[in-house]
Amino acid sequence: MSTIADVAARAGVSKATASRALSGRGYVSEETRLRVVNAADALAYVAHSSATSLATGRTQTVGIIMPPVDRWFFAELLAGIQESLFALDYDLSLYGVPEGSETRERLFESVLPRRRFDGIIAVGIQPSARELEKLQRTGRPLVSVGPYSAGSSSISIDDTAAARIATEHLIELGHRDIAFVGGSTDSGELSFGDARRLDGYHGALHAAGLSAHARVAGATPTMPGGYTAAAGLLGDRRRRPTAIVGVCDEAAIGAVIAARRLGIAVPTELSVVGIDDHEHAEMFALTTIGQSPREQGHEAVRLLTLRMKEPDAPLEHVAAASALVVRSSTAPPR
Amino acid sequence: MSTIADVAARAGVSKATASRALSGRGYVSEETRLRVVNAADALAYVAHSSATSLATGRTQTVGIIMPPVDRWFFAELLAGIQESLFALDYDLSLYGVPEGSETRERLFESVLPRRRFDGIIAVGIQPSARELEKLQRTGRPLVSVGPYSAGSSSISIDDTAAARIATEHLIELGHRDIAFVGGSTDSGELSFGDARRLDGYHGALHAAGLSAHARVAGATPTMPGGYTAAAGLLGDRRRRPTAIVGVCDEAAIGAVIAARRLGIAVPTELSVVGIDDHEHAEMFALTTIGQSPREQGHEAVRLLTLRMKEPDAPLEHVAAASALVVRSSTAPPR
Repeated sequence: MSTIADVAARAGVSKATASRALSGRGYVSEETRLRVVNAADALAYVAHSSATSLATGRTQTVGIIMPPVDRWFFAELLAGIQESLFALDYDLSLYGVPEGSETRERLFESVLPRRRFDGIIAVGIQPSARELEKLQRTGRPLVSVGPYSAGSSSISIDDTAAARIATEHLIELGHRDIAFVGGSTDSGELSFGDARRLDGYHGALHAAGLSAHARVAGATPTMPGGYTAAAGLLGDRRRRPTAIVGVCDEAAIGAVIAARRLGIAVPTELSVVGIDDHEHAEMFALTTIGQSPREQGHEAVRLLTLRMKEPDAPLEHVAAASALVVRSSTAPPR
Repeated sequence: MSTIADVAARAGVSKATASRALSGRGYVSEETRLRVVNAADALAYVAHSSATSLATGRTQTVGIIMPPVDRWFFAELLAGIQESLFALDYDLSLYGVPEGSETRERLFESVLPRRRFDGIIAVGIQPSARELEKLQRTGRPLVSVGPYSAGSSSISIDDTAAARIATEHLIELGHRDIAFVGGSTDSGELSFGDARRLDGYHGALHAAGLSAHARVAGATPTMPGGYTAAAGLLGDRRRRPTAIVGVCDEAAIGAVIAARRLGIAVPTELSVVGIDDHEHAEMFALTTIGQSPREQGHEAVRLLTLRMKEPDAPLEHVAAASALVVRSSTAPPR
């Protein structure tokens, strides 16, 4: 196996220069960099990253903890994190966290504390106090993506405001019978972010003197969840709401599909608004509160690199951008 | 920072025993393991994985190369890979591969060859001959998930057979005017797997003497792609097909939604069949060819661990299970 000395000799540079050229850390001229890279290629040289890591104390690796990624939000967010880490030449170690399982306990109690990262990004996992303590005891910078922020820098949209603005949009159009689809999850528990969205819905109704009209249809935050809950709401002609706020676009799209199946025209007989601006929102002409999880991924990496440079800097809590996108799933009631 | 010697002293065992207990490799009694783990916890000991790695030559890390995961198939597959690797105490380093970008070149030319893994799983990326050579030069075991297998063990469904069986199901119901939705991608190129599915469609028509009826509507393999292509096909009343084969469930679901919007009843006026058994297939009562990407993820890890144990064993090509799932989106033509 070739060593860095072999590469340096072939390229006619010092070992230190060869090392800088291959690691991308520290200045070398473009011409020298190319000469070293060609020498390394010719010798099939592979940097012994463990040795590098022992020497520098850095792993060039960031640990990502997130639920299994079968939803648009997480996939987009992960893509954003990947883009930023790749540009910075960091590796990404991915840990899935199934809710409430033994795997989760093993992850926090024994796996993560024994792994070495330069930093950790926790996405949508709502760590318990004990889990957070375990993460903090590792002494590595930690950034959370999501609406909980004790003990870490964090980024998320203002979920309460997002749902309030979505509901206010319907109230301004003249709706009074506005239902919320998405009041529960599979386990019967609301995620912290979804609970805030429910708060925002209630807050908007309350401010408009419409609290007596509040109606929440429990649904998992998925298309089938929204479909089933909306089908239940819309089945009884006399008690049918004139508008629906979906806890997320997937639930709202499920509601649009349910309405179409029941022969209820959107938006003339039913208005529907979501939260996310999901990749399918445009196809369903869905009015929604847009956010960009991909940009949140970039931002999470930026927050983490700041903390890696200055571990004692004050925690930052960044409110990600979100804004009403009006398409044609909402209109005044008949 | 505590060392393994501190942990061993506190637990009253040898360094070798403490190391075995914490790494999970090699036998120690459950009682000893607990004593060592408690000592490590008390000392906030974190194994210096770089040092472990230098000593053993192993990294306990598997590199995963896959496109950004915004589709059900990839998300499920990744979840399966995560489950299996976590059970084996391996870390997962994730590399996203945007098609045809400079990032892709940098990944294969300089990033992957300089990283250390015990093995690599490449998912849905169709490596070029040069990329494959780069991966093989690293000398690490390689497993592919997808219908291409030169130079690596591999697993995928038989895409040709899946589309042929889907098309034969429609022919057996009495359909003759059967269109295929999904003849292109964003870049104008068909992925290798989708090209095989198109072959399977043509093969079934040919065998039934229906080649003159073949009609392919170009569509990206997504719900909006299927929606747009099907809307085009179904718009002209006189030339409307009586059945559609979707290149995947997402495209097929897009076709079902397009039919509903145009007031065309599924299945009485139009039959639709997909491939995948996507998480939304049941909600749309979609007849499909089911496969389990999660199980394929488990299988990919099994193939990789086999190759890590015996690098010179012959390559294995595993055909993953797939089977017709009949729901109510298909019926005889009127």
